[in-house]
Amino acid sequence: MAIVAAGKRSSHMKPIDFQTDPSKYRHWRIERDGDVAYLIMDVDQAGGLDEGYELKLNSYDLGVDIELNDAVQRLRFEYPGVGAVVIKSGKDNVFCAGANIRMLGKATHGHKVNFCKFTNETRLAIEDATENSKQTYICAINGNAAGGGYELALAADHIMLVDDRRSAVALPETPLLAVLPGTGGLTRVTDKRKVRRDRADVFCSIEEGIRGARAKEWRLVDEIVPNSKWTETVSKRAHEIAARSDRPKDANGITFNPLARKIDGDRISYSHVDVDIDRARGLVSITVRGPSAPEPASLEAAHALGDQFWPLAVARELEDAILHLRANEPSIGVVLLRTEGNALAVLDYDAFLSQYDSDWLMREIRHYLKRTLKRIDTTPKSFIALIEPGSCFAGTLAELAFAADRSYMLIGTRDGDNRKPAAITLGHVNFGLYPMGNGLSRLQTRFLGEPDSIKIAQSKSGVALEAEQADQLGLITQAYETFDWDDELRVMLEGRASFSPDAMTGMEANLRFAGPETMETKIFGRLTAWQNWIFQRPNAIGEQGALKLYGSGVSPTYNKERV
Amino acid sequence: MAIVAAGKRSSHMKPIDFQTDPSKYRHWRIERDGDVAYLIMDVDQAGGLDEGYELKLNSYDLGVDIELNDAVQRLRFEYPGVGAVVIKSGKDNVFCAGANIRMLGKATHGHKVNFCKFTNETRLAIEDATENSKQTYICAINGNAAGGGYELALAADHIMLVDDRRSAVALPETPLLAVLPGTGGLTRVTDKRKVRRDRADVFCSIEEGIRGARAKEWRLVDEIVPNSKWTETVSKRAHEIAARSDRPKDANGITFNPLARKIDGDRISYSHVDVDIDRARGLVSITVRGPSAPEPASLEAAHALGDQFWPLAVARELEDAILHLRANEPSIGVVLLRTEGNALAVLDYDAFLSQYDSDWLMREIRHYLKRTLKRIDTTPKSFIALIEPGSCFAGTLAELAFAADRSYMLIGTRDGDNRKPAAITLGHVNFGLYPMGNGLSRLQTRFLGEPDSIKIAQSKSGVALEAEQADQLGLITQAYETFDWDDELRVMLEGRASFSPDAMTGMEANLRFAGPETMETKIFGRLTAWQNWIFQRPNAIGEQGALKLYGSGVSPTYNKERV
Repeated sequence: MAIVAAGKRSSHMKPIDFQTDPSKYRHWRIERDGDVAYLIMDVDQAGGLDEGYELKLNSYDLGVDIELNDAVQRLRFEYPGVGAVVIKSGKDNVFCAGANIRMLGKATHGHKVNFCKFTNETRLAIEDATENSKQTYICAINGNAAGGGYELALAADHIMLVDDRRSAVALPETPLLAVLPGTGGLTRVTDKRKVRRDRADVFCSIEEGIRGARAKEWRLVDEIVPNSKWTETVSKRAHEIAARSDRPKDANGITFNPLARKIDGDRISYSHVDVDIDRARGLVSITVRGPSAPEPASLEAAHALGDQFWPLAVARELEDAILHLRANEPSIGVVLLRTEGNALAVLDYDAFLSQYDSDWLMREIRHYLKRTLKRIDTTPKSFIALIEPGSCFAGTLAELAFAADRSYMLIGTRDGDNRKPAAITLGHVNFGLYPMGNGLSRLQTRFLGEPDSIKIAQSKSGVALEAEQADQLGLITQAYETFDWDDELRVMLEGRASFSPDAMTGMEANLRFAGPETMETKIFGRLTAWQNWIFQRPNAIGEQGALKLYGSGVSPTYNKERV
Repeated sequence: MAIVAAGKRSSHMKPIDFQTDPSKYRHWRIERDGDVAYLIMDVDQAGGLDEGYELKLNSYDLGVDIELNDAVQRLRFEYPGVGAVVIKSGKDNVFCAGANIRMLGKATHGHKVNFCKFTNETRLAIEDATENSKQTYICAINGNAAGGGYELALAADHIMLVDDRRSAVALPETPLLAVLPGTGGLTRVTDKRKVRRDRADVFCSIEEGIRGARAKEWRLVDEIVPNSKWTETVSKRAHEIAARSDRPKDANGITFNPLARKIDGDRISYSHVDVDIDRARGLVSITVRGPSAPEPASLEAAHALGDQFWPLAVARELEDAILHLRANEPSIGVVLLRTEGNALAVLDYDAFLSQYDSDWLMREIRHYLKRTLKRIDTTPKSFIALIEPGSCFAGTLAELAFAADRSYMLIGTRDGDNRKPAAITLGHVNFGLYPMGNGLSRLQTRFLGEPDSIKIAQSKSGVALEAEQADQLGLITQAYETFDWDDELRVMLEGRASFSPDAMTGMEANLRFAGPETMETKIFGRLTAWQNWIFQRPNAIGEQGALKLYGSGVSPTYNKERV
């Protein structure tokens, strides 16, 4: 089938960079008050990622959220003594007006979808910090929190609203813009806040939102506070919540230095990760290298390594590579996942992390690895793991094979290659330490229909499982002899590249999430899929659609047929 | 906001009628062999619902599925002695080629979506028969079962495949048509058959499907049978399974007579249900009348009433009304739900049904009511219950108020109306007898955030709860005094009518399904929403898209960007 040639994100746009640091922030700042940090949103309206819109009223675009994501990560790693984070506005009388509508009106379909996905991940990272880092998020809303502004608040564990007869929370997307509160809004209203469905229907149908006592009665916020006691009550509540945290009050944080990233044409290299794009074949190869040095001699030594500690460096580098490919390489549909190095060294690092899991930093690293692996699960590209001699699909890195849509393993060795045959080596981390969004480990999801296979696999922990054994245990899709390998892979990859990218995205979004749905997977499944549908409908994006006409003074014209 | 005027389904098409009976079937027949029935698919290729396509190779359109739905219902009610149903093909060498592609290529977006929804409901009804009527479905595949053909098989409890080195099961939608196996296929492969995700990925990527032993090893089928023993083994298996049923071997079925339905312009009336369309306001009023006679004196008397027994008649009539509105009145976005009659009489019928729940017919009726109520949950229109004097929102009919997106209740009485004030009367049926697709009762879903409210409501069972009390108990959205009623409703309905129909559909599809997701809700949530997105994408439906070009000899041209 013919394929329309297409290049990078857009020839005239510079690539989106997901790396930043506080010295470069234009929209956020962090202020510390003992065990509490204030994460202050103060959007520079001239600081949009693209041209053609102004970020008025603390509205945001992807650039604003890239900074937020960076801040949320750093708060976990650089501020171990902070037990509560208060998100608040740096502007008077407005909390946040949500995603910038003119930006959405101009954006391509792909950019809208990717923007929503990333902001969803950031909000889930906020919830992950609350739940797993005991760094609890509080949202202090003084002013209006509308649309994405309230959706940001919904990610917090405790929502405070100033009771000033003016400030409201609102999800006006449906009446105003003909789209959904699609960045978790509808799902969190029903499944996290557990707002009664008819009240949710009312709430999501009124532009002006809901204020004061009614917002609390409807469970849209947790607490309302008179204006006169606002600052003091927010501070008091934050310190109370921080006091319940198990984070070490006087530990030193570690610093996230800029990634050692080199971009050279179609090759991006980091310290432990290489990315090679093959534009002609529409695929990219990501190679993750195992540790080049043994695990540290002590916990102190690991802390001293800071962001150079192998598992943390891998989490950061792999995450950056995935985010880059998603945003900037839409025409690359297939990702080959490879590893290189010593399997036992990977398992040694895994053992080290678990041995010190009560340490705040080791815990943070484990959760960071978990979140990075989840980014793969929600990435709209086909992942194919290639397990060959010299690879180290062991423990944490074996998760890459289980996150992949398919995995192929070479039987035996190639002529002239004196390395041992490829192996998968399972470790304890593969049995629950890196849950997917559905709450199950990747092996549990894989073996939903044959739970005994998990027990059998578990009994082989630490054993280098070569291709035929891995195949027999159900750990890989297929094993090939060397003389079949090249042809089989070529045919498979050519086939994959010939399919409709949309159908592949939809198929993978369904096949990857067998079993239970959680609030998290409902956000990426039910809510996102409906929003993406609406993002294709003329009532939203047509020339007469609400997103296009917003702010123009002209009312949208709707086709009134219900689908 | 401006609304594009739009009329019925299409001015030149006749309305789709969901009523049929075996004397009119063109595509199916039922053959009985003792406690086993064979449901034989033998599609008349000239019998398409619309013009412009031929239903070759047992492919189907909505008309074929309307007959299947009718047959599945009748098998439950008219064949109490049948404990197993074998779906098989009446054609040599082909089981079913799935949904007709030329039909899909020609169909409007709305028709595609509605067609998929109805076929999904029919497949769920097959599973419901297996699970709740102990009428177990077996699928006997002799020939190819491709796409929707295999999706139909997936609804069966036991899938048998002839092992003739030719017959295969396949889901070729993604490689061939650039759409998903969206009628439950992807979800049932992962969540019902629990096929390993990488195998599912392989299976859904190959046009030719999988045969024989491998189909069994991958859990795609339950049993493979050599050609020489096919008929005998299918019969043997069916009788074995039928023998395990608790259905009465020698009971008399009841007959579904044609509905007493009168269509008069914009009014449709049945014996217990009236439908009044207000085209100018884009809304329809459905009024369900309570029983006009007391409950039968005995179980035998209820059987003697057959399809005239009030609860069964209501289930059939309400279902027909909903299906009609979905398919033929896309421009009607709002449904007002009303009831009329005596609340105590409704509760008496509920009590009667439960008293005899061990009777096969009473059980069938309860499940039919459950399925009809579920049709509301998945209907893309806003449901507003209006609870006024003279209404009977009690027990089973109170579910209508809980199925609605909102409910409004009049406080007190209107001048000149000497009927009692409106009341809601809860009964035991509201606490678990009519689960939604998510497995919870509508009250459980409603009170997800306040489980105590269920207990309190339960303690009020049998009490006529007037507006203010119902409001206080959280059972309604809002109570209005008579002098506010008309204005408040007018404003609300005008607002509702002004919103984007797409945004309302997406919003309702999210807000109605709080809490757990099941395979059933995943089909309507995750899978359907992704499919609907793909049904809007040029790679599927554009002039160069796969659905449009299928069968033309021209290959589709894809935009290769991944979203």
